[in-house]
This record gives sequence, structure tokens and C-alpha cells, in this order.
Amino acid sequence: MRTQSSASDASREPLPAGIDLAALRADTPGCDSVIHFNNAGCGLLARPVLRTMLDHLQLEAAIGGYEASAAREIQVGDFYAAVAELINTAPGNIAFAGSATHAYTKALSAIDFLRGDVILTTRNDFISNQIAFLALRKRLGVEIVHAPDHPDGSGVDVAAMAALMRSRRPRLVAATHIPTNSGLVQPVAEIGRHCRELDLLYLVDACQSVGQYELDVEEIGCDLLTATCRKFLRGPRGSGFLYVSDRILREGYEPLFIDMYGARWVEPDRYRPVDSAARFEEWEFPYATVLGCAAAARYALAVGQAAIARRTPALAARLREGLAAVPGVRVLDRGPAPAALVTFEIAGWQAQPFKRAVDARGINSALSLREFAQYDFADKDVDWCLRLSPHYYNTEEEVDAVADTVAELARRAPGGNR
Amino acid sequence: MRTQSSASDASREPLPAGIDLAALRADTPGCDSVIHFNNAGCGLLARPVLRTMLDHLQLEAAIGGYEASAAREIQVGDFYAAVAELINTAPGNIAFAGSATHAYTKALSAIDFLRGDVILTTRNDFISNQIAFLALRKRLGVEIVHAPDHPDGSGVDVAAMAALMRSRRPRLVAATHIPTNSGLVQPVAEIGRHCRELDLLYLVDACQSVGQYELDVEEIGCDLLTATCRKFLRGPRGSGFLYVSDRILREGYEPLFIDMYGARWVEPDRYRPVDSAARFEEWEFPYATVLGCAAAARYALAVGQAAIARRTPALAARLREGLAAVPGVRVLDRGPAPAALVTFEIAGWQAQPFKRAVDARGINSALSLREFAQYDFADKDVDWCLRLSPHYYNTEEEVDAVADTVAELARRAPGGNR
Repeated sequence: MRTQSSASDASREPLPAGIDLAALRADTPGCDSVIHFNNAGCGLLARPVLRTMLDHLQLEAAIGGYEASAAREIQVGDFYAAVAELINTAPGNIAFAGSATHAYTKALSAIDFLRGDVILTTRNDFISNQIAFLALRKRLGVEIVHAPDHPDGSGVDVAAMAALMRSRRPRLVAATHIPTNSGLVQPVAEIGRHCRELDLLYLVDACQSVGQYELDVEEIGCDLLTATCRKFLRGPRGSGFLYVSDRILREGYEPLFIDMYGARWVEPDRYRPVDSAARFEEWEFPYATVLGCAAAARYALAVGQAAIARRTPALAARLREGLAAVPGVRVLDRGPAPAALVTFEIAGWQAQPFKRAVDARGINSALSLREFAQYDFADKDVDWCLRLSPHYYNTEEEVDAVADTVAELARRAPGGNR
Repeated sequence: MRTQSSASDASREPLPAGIDLAALRADTPGCDSVIHFNNAGCGLLARPVLRTMLDHLQLEAAIGGYEASAAREIQVGDFYAAVAELINTAPGNIAFAGSATHAYTKALSAIDFLRGDVILTTRNDFISNQIAFLALRKRLGVEIVHAPDHPDGSGVDVAAMAALMRSRRPRLVAATHIPTNSGLVQPVAEIGRHCRELDLLYLVDACQSVGQYELDVEEIGCDLLTATCRKFLRGPRGSGFLYVSDRILREGYEPLFIDMYGARWVEPDRYRPVDSAARFEEWEFPYATVLGCAAAARYALAVGQAAIARRTPALAARLREGLAAVPGVRVLDRGPAPAALVTFEIAGWQAQPFKRAVDARGINSALSLREFAQYDFADKDVDWCLRLSPHYYNTEEEVDAVADTVAELARRAPGGNR
């Protein structure tokens, strides 16, 4: 366990050019103590990201919090540049947020929903987004329409979703690129083409895809995109961002609540929103976190997004293969090319004891519960599953060790292995 | 400069019992390098607060972000207990927020404003609150009513405000305890008594008072109270909290946007808000920051809120006295017992050059611009002022040195000293 792979070993998934695994692991303190397969929860910090945050907190203590952020103005600006580079946009189209949920609700709040307006979404949108839609229904009387999944299990049925776009003329189309509860990858760019064609507002939740895949907001065709920085991007906790298209800015959308950073108080009775995506930000920033996000985005760019996008899902595929061979295990992920979120149920175990048994073996994982995915888990007829999410800095040996551990636990299931 | 005071020196403001200034300054790294009179911007971190944050970030890097927060569950819980103790409430009435503005807009969003509803506020409410009210007017058609100030300059005219409560029956009464742009202390408890008597919802912004004064939400009589942790509480950047009364929770108020932490997704079509103030929180937390806030609140409690409330405004009074004696300086603060925000204008200087000159002398300060306080600065007929905000860990020597520096700069005013 916790051994290092090398590009010369032919028995392994080939390492993409440019990935020096030994160096990347040496750069990741957590690799010394755990098998971290919880990157879909929160990725392990790389040393430059950690150092950036520690340095800034120490600077704040030494000279004052406002004085420290003023001294790091250029580096703070690089947050916008680095994130913009990650998703192919301009720095002025990026807003920092304290979480992806914060970014998402700021985006939703910019839309002046009227009673009867339709939000068209999928059956696999993130739980917090689904709850936000329900809250809008309760408060404002919007209607929520869920496009059906394709019968082949490949995710949302895009043709059916496009038909709903035409028949219902939704005020907003919303899709989660990769749900938190499975490795499904939704066809967000295909959905986007229909939105563009029909001139519909389109909001994409990219929490589980940023840092794992190459994202291009132009190709996706979205007006708004939200993400967290803590997952596959390996940034700090308490961080996220919102992409705001030029169209949204030009057409005067602004969040319901705007503050002295997003707007100027120009007269006692009037404020003027700023021109850039800063309109969606707030005056107070956690600067150590913002600088950590900038470092994480630069780190991902240096490793290479294309290289990551080849290696990470390949590790997951190897894990899925190993798990599928274990008696009593059912792998739950669907779709033609699943992401690095590997979910499975295991016979004879309850959720918490199983998670604790995996923890006790030095493997970081996450539980997904039915209430996190009411539609998906009902369709799959499961109450819970374990989620394992490797990343590019994990090794093939770790993948195999984890599959072996699950096999061992399946044999020792307290409830028997049906 | 940067010398230490001792309680035995009779020429100084008496040190309240229990404040060991030398120890407190030794515990504050920034005291070695700056005269920090920008506590109303962001207080200097004490070592225990800094250490708590650094430790947690290192733990996250070592074992994973989710795993680290699970390992510190008890300490995270202490954030609620410590903040509750600060303001005399129960832990379940406290919600963490990424900023006071975030807390404030969450609170506002819980009120289902209808067209024509009145928000009754003062002429000295914080700029971002004023902008939020204007945004609600724009989107929802609420009416904003500003209660007049008392002619004696003591802040809002409470009798006039109470008359407006009776005649306009506002949906919300909102007051800022201490504005960001002067040392004025508003009579929030007096306002609260009228709100209770008339059964009106009452929201208080306590950003500049928490950590400087003893706050008691029962005495204030508010339903909702918001604050930042970074100012006089000396907590991390990117942090704040919201107090939510039992009444608000009992009557089913919930934020417009609620997520998987504030609510359970109990059925595909239905969510259920949680019982406590966690209803106003989000799933993702910046745990190092939350733990830093807990440490800051515990630190304030250990120093003693009553002792701080005696010493801090007394230092400000000494500074005000020193500045008032300087030819060309006009101290702008009003009210019978101003807080530790000392604001003044100085003849012959422009804003930025003056701030730079003060910076260059190792003194941290802040500029307040007309746009931050449209009503107050119009009344005072000023375009900008410098704000100096000492705290209990500052010394009398620092206060005198700062007054001397301002006197020196007044003599050297580029535009002459009218």
C-alpha cells in the first residue's frame, strides 16, 4: 500500500506524458498516511497550495488582514486568471464564492422567476440544487420539470429534454455535469446546443468535473457554471466559483442580494452594479482561501488537464473492474464513460459499520445515502452505497489494494454474503 | 512606538482587572511590526487563533479535508457554544456564515416580502445593507423608510422611529449597532423594546460591536443579529455568524435558498428544514476558519468582554481628545459614548496621499469614502475621512504616537492647513 508507481512498469495504466507520479506524490503530504479515495469529497492538498495558505495567514497575523490582502493584490488577481484559463473564459467572467452552493444560489437568485415559470432539470441533479428548486417552488410558485433518463442508462435523454425545452419554454435549464452519487457523466454540451438553439438560459453544476476533465464553457454553451475548488481541483475547503457569461452581464442580470463590492452606492436612492462578474461577489473574502484556490488552479494547469482527464477516469475504471469481480458487490455507476466516482453496494453490511471498516484499513471513502439522490437511488433500488474516488496522484497499487480490501470485507460480511 | 504599557503607570487609562497587556501583546504577533489601528477593518490575530487555523490546514493536508473535519467535530461544535456565550443565547441559535453580509442576506431572504412591504431602517445602516434594501425594492417593490436622526446628534431618533413603526407597520425593522463610518453607537435595545411591544421583526447588524462590547440578544430584543468575526473579535477573514431567535425557528422562517445541510430531502417532491439555526447554514464549511472563529470567541471570553468594553472605547476617547487638539483636524464622531471607531477629516490633504503617509509611518488605518455612507457624510459635509480603530491590546503610547503623527502631517499638509 501507498507504494509509488512508475511510468516504466508495463502492467499499469500508461502514465500520460508529463505526469511524474513520484514527484506528484512527494508533493502531496497525505500520500504518506492514507489511501485517499475521497477526492469527490475533498482532494488532498498539494504542498504549494498548503504553503500558500499558511503563508498568507501568517502574513495576516504579522501585518493585519486588510494590509495583507492589499500586499497580495496581484496574486489575488491570479485566482481569476487561473480559473478562467481552466474553463476557457476571461478573468472578468469569474466570481469567487465560499462554496459551490453559494455560487449556485447566487446564480439562481439573478433570475427573476415568476409564478408558473418552469425550471427544466434532470433526475441526477445534485441534491442541494434539487432542494433549491423545491424552495423556489414553495416561495415563488415555479414549476420543476425533470427530463427523463435515457432507457440505455447513459444519463438524461437529450432528445426528450430538448422536446421539453420546446414544449415548456423553461425559464432555466439546469444540469449537473457529474452527480455526487455516481460516476455518470451527463452530456452537458449536447444539452447546451439545444439551449443555444432555443435561446434558453442554461446553468451547469460542474463540481465533480472541474479538475478531473477539461472544461470549456464555450463548448458547453452555458450561461452560468458553478464549481467547488476543494474536490478534484485540490483546493481549500470553503471555496468555489461562478462563471458568468458575457450575455448574462450584458443583459443586466444581477444577484437578488448585491453588496458594496458588487455595486456602487452612487446616490442615497440608487446603486449601480459593476460590469464584471464581481457583481456576484461579496466585499469580504477569505483571502488565504482565494490564494489557495489560485495555487490549486495553477497546479492543475501545470500537471496538465488533458493528462489528468486521461489518467483519473482510467484509475476508476480499473477499480470498477476489480470491484465487479468481488462476489456480493454490485457496482452502480452507469453511462458509457464514467468519471472517477466509483459507487457500489455490498451484501451483508450496514452503511456505518462498512464505512468504519474501510476507514480502519487506512482508506478514505464516502457514504452516499438515499436522501442524497432520491431519484437515482430509487431507480437503482439502493438505500446507500460507498463512493470511492481516486485521482491522478493515486497509484495502481492503491487501486488494487482497495479492491482487495473490499473483497476481504465482502467475505467477512456480518450479515453474510448473499 | 510599539512599547508596552503596564497597569502600574498612573498616567495611563487604568487597565481593567484581568487584562495583562504585556501578555496580550506578546500573544499578538502583529504588535511587533505595526501600530494596528484598523481593528474596525480586521483585528490582529492572536497566536491561539492563528495556530488553530494553521494546525487544521496541516491536518487536512495530512489526512484529507473531510476526514480532518470529522476528527475535529467537538471543536467545531465549540464554535456554536462559544459564540452563543458571547451574545447570551444557545448554540442552536447560531449559524456560521462566510461573511456578515452573507449572514445578513440569508436573514433577509427568510422574509417573504410582498410589494409595498416596508423596511424601516436608519440613516446610518451599513452600506451593504442599504444596497440590499435597494435591491429588494428593485426586485420586489418593497418600500424603504429611513427614520430621522435625533437633532442632538445622538443617533437615530427613537421616538420618531417608534412613531413610524406604529404608522407604517414595517415588515422588518433593521438597525446597525455601530456604523462602519463613525463611532456612533445606536440605541439598539431601545429600538428593540418598541419592536417587541409592537411585535415587529427586528434585525440587528452587530459587525462593529461584537468583540468590543458585551452583547445580549435578549436585552437587545432582536429576532435576528448578524456579525463578522474578523473585526473586534479578532477572528479569521471570511467568517461571520447569524443569530436566529427561537421565535424565528418556531414560526418556520427559512432562507430563500436552503440546501442539503439546512434541510433534509425527505421525498423527491419535498424537503424538511432542520430545527436549529443550521437551517441558515450551507453544507460546505471552511473548517479551519470555523475553528479559528471558535478560538477567537474563546479568547475574547478569556480576556473578558466587560474588561474589553471598558478599555477599548477609553483608548478611542483618548485618541479623539488628542486629534481634537490638532489644528486642521475635525473629529467627526457623534453620540454621547462613541465606540472605538475614530473618524476625522484633515485640512490640506487628499484621501489617498494622506492614507499613504499614515501607512508609511507604520500605522494601519482605513479610509471611509462618501459612497460608504451617503446619508451620514452628506450630513457632515465630508467626502472622505480617515478611520482609526484601536483595540484593547493597543497601548496608550501608541494612541499618543498616532495623535502626534497626525499633528505632524497636519503641519505638512500639501494643500496647506486652512
